[in-house]
Amino acid sequence: MENYQVPRGTQDILGEDIKKWHYLEELIREFATVYDYEEIRTPIFEHSEVFSRENDSSDMVNKEMYTFLDNGDRSLTLKPEGTAGIIRSYVENKLYASADQPYKCYYVAPAFRYERPQKGRMRIHHQFGIEIIGIKNPIIDVELITLGYSFVKAVGLKDIKVLINTLGDEKSRSDYKAALVEYFKPHIEGFCGDCQRRYRQNPLRILDCKIDKDRPAMKNAPKLSDYLSEDSKAYFKQVLNGLDELEIGYEIDEKLVRGLDYYTDTVFEVVNVNPAMGSQATIFGGGRYDDLVEYFGGPPLSGIGYGMGIERLLVACESEGIEIPLEEGLDVYIMPMKPEYQIKALTLATECRAHGYSTDLDYLGRSLKAQFKTVERKKAKVVLILGEDEIKEKTVTLKRIETQTNITIKEEEMITQLDEWFSEVEDEENA
Amino acid sequence: MENYQVPRGTQDILGEDIKKWHYLEELIREFATVYDYEEIRTPIFEHSEVFSRENDSSDMVNKEMYTFLDNGDRSLTLKPEGTAGIIRSYVENKLYASADQPYKCYYVAPAFRYERPQKGRMRIHHQFGIEIIGIKNPIIDVELITLGYSFVKAVGLKDIKVLINTLGDEKSRSDYKAALVEYFKPHIEGFCGDCQRRYRQNPLRILDCKIDKDRPAMKNAPKLSDYLSEDSKAYFKQVLNGLDELEIGYEIDEKLVRGLDYYTDTVFEVVNVNPAMGSQATIFGGGRYDDLVEYFGGPPLSGIGYGMGIERLLVACESEGIEIPLEEGLDVYIMPMKPEYQIKALTLATECRAHGYSTDLDYLGRSLKAQFKTVERKKAKVVLILGEDEIKEKTVTLKRIETQTNITIKEEEMITQLDEWFSEVEDEENA
Repeated sequence: MENYQVPRGTQDILGEDIKKWHYLEELIREFATVYDYEEIRTPIFEHSEVFSRENDSSDMVNKEMYTFLDNGDRSLTLKPEGTAGIIRSYVENKLYASADQPYKCYYVAPAFRYERPQKGRMRIHHQFGIEIIGIKNPIIDVELITLGYSFVKAVGLKDIKVLINTLGDEKSRSDYKAALVEYFKPHIEGFCGDCQRRYRQNPLRILDCKIDKDRPAMKNAPKLSDYLSEDSKAYFKQVLNGLDELEIGYEIDEKLVRGLDYYTDTVFEVVNVNPAMGSQATIFGGGRYDDLVEYFGGPPLSGIGYGMGIERLLVACESEGIEIPLEEGLDVYIMPMKPEYQIKALTLATECRAHGYSTDLDYLGRSLKAQFKTVERKKAKVVLILGEDEIKEKTVTLKRIETQTNITIKEEEMITQLDEWFSEVEDEENA
Repeated sequence: MENYQVPRGTQDILGEDIKKWHYLEELIREFATVYDYEEIRTPIFEHSEVFSRENDSSDMVNKEMYTFLDNGDRSLTLKPEGTAGIIRSYVENKLYASADQPYKCYYVAPAFRYERPQKGRMRIHHQFGIEIIGIKNPIIDVELITLGYSFVKAVGLKDIKVLINTLGDEKSRSDYKAALVEYFKPHIEGFCGDCQRRYRQNPLRILDCKIDKDRPAMKNAPKLSDYLSEDSKAYFKQVLNGLDELEIGYEIDEKLVRGLDYYTDTVFEVVNVNPAMGSQATIFGGGRYDDLVEYFGGPPLSGIGYGMGIERLLVACESEGIEIPLEEGLDVYIMPMKPEYQIKALTLATECRAHGYSTDLDYLGRSLKAQFKTVERKKAKVVLILGEDEIKEKTVTLKRIETQTNITIKEEEMITQLDEWFSEVEDEENA
């Protein structure tokens, strides 16, 4: 028995769903254009070293990656997130040497994680992400959050909230890590296996644990805010002031550390507070990374980015009852009344299409009644009938559905007639 | 030494290149819309059984696939082509039961083949493909070829040629295969290893061999045209008549068998005859498949499709010297004259963006001269200057580059002024 089913945690996108994707993707490209971000596309797989950074404590890197050998025995990994490949590309293509800085880019790309599939969490999911690389400036953090926040608002989500935190700069974090190691030492043996690994790799992530979160030792753990350097405090304050200026409401969440190890200073999440979203409430999240460019062999330049799950955004829209506007119906449907008229129908269809009218035709030789059902389903605006008389006289009969107008004209007048009718439709729509 | 380079045979797409992709992808979507094809997206990987059909003799299936085990030990394969996943989806989603037949779809998707990389042949490449599934009708074959041919013409390619052939129906091919087995029997031991495999799996593909092509035994091999059934001959004749009606020039190429085993009856290729393209001349190619839907567990319905390599199309454009029209420049560039004005600049930028004007701003506190270089590079139409006076008076100074007009106005009049200037620009462009 062969397995001809879509792999678990993946899906086909078609029918009404693909129209929702088109709407969101067009909106993404509109936002990217007005914010002046350039698209970048990196390969779907990279050398595994690009993602599996030494000592990374995240579940994503440790458990969830699709890694395999190619036919030449090179280890490749399907990209689990968007940022690492882009930084690799930024360094390899020496984008830091370009005249215009910072480098502002966006991507719409699949991401691959071997996780337990849930609603809004797929093994192949898609992310709309942006990165601003090359300059560290709190106003840039504000711009980045503004773009994502405005986008989510434009989609129509209302129940959203910005959570923000700072992880501090290198000094803040090394002081804090030392304090955490010291503090957790007498407790760590009772914690879960993941936390014991995190204790060695990145003790900050212990605070993020869903298993150990109610332990008494968690409550009294040292707070990062007590270890922030003056620079980091000042930087964070400027980010918050900027959000105030842009009138973006936020909530400081000291527990927010994000799931990836490379963040420094600003981290944020935009969450849906609609209770129907449950644990899948994060619409997008990201943060600043001071060290990634240098890690990939580039100069010591900082960057900031976020990734937004498109599947999750769609679930959020559903839970808020947002109706995504779908594409319009067909312009012209051509009905050849006998199979031998199909080739003439295709010739006329090709002419309509060449003039920009979306056009389909019947290939089944069905009854007029059956064909009119198709016209209804496809919401066609004009029907073209090719019967015996029309073929004999080299004419076409056009029927405008909205007004129920019928007209029989010479074949060569067809486009002129369509132009006339459709410019009227356009005028009405603009009125 | 870590390997932070793009994997061999893959590439980053960014800068000027991404603009070419945007142009082609928009054109693809326009064509798909006017021809009334629905987009379908299938996962990037499928269960390996979807692609590795028993006894398939193609190099693609036998040597070039990226196949690996996931963390749950299921064998997955990165899709090497678009059709198989779509047929799997067509059957799984019971699209054959939909009221409107045939099912007409398109895709723009990556395809993965472990091959020796060449110009226009990448390990990760991208295909624009279409499929029409559910009805066997020669006029449908003509529609499919017309779409691809018109698209390639619209891109601007001139040196193109349609090659077409028929592989016949099942009866034609089993008669012909028997003849080939008989004929090659005394010769096959001297042929290459691949041909010896093809002899067992699919002797038709021996005729396609690049290594053995000049052997004397090849010249006198039986011809498929002598084994075609009457049905297949009549079908092919109707396809050719249809192409004549649509005024699409073609050349019958009896050697054309295409690289995949599942084709039946019509097969075709559209090739670039510009000598600069060398062996990478095929722009798109495909054919009809009578048995695939049934193979995947669906009813015995026929389909037809093609795939067009986008990278190869770009190489063809280059070799013909076609300049792909690129997107326009920026609408507004904002220049804060001191770093502390950046937050005000961002606020104004956000307002311009919310009104649909593509806008960027300086985050570097550079000199006016350096900022005007950026304006040139970004081809910005309007510059907004924020100096000490403007900040004090809550005004902005706008400079329209084309006319070198300067104006200082109240902040709240900014959008009105932009609306006025840009509607003038639009009028000029329409004039």
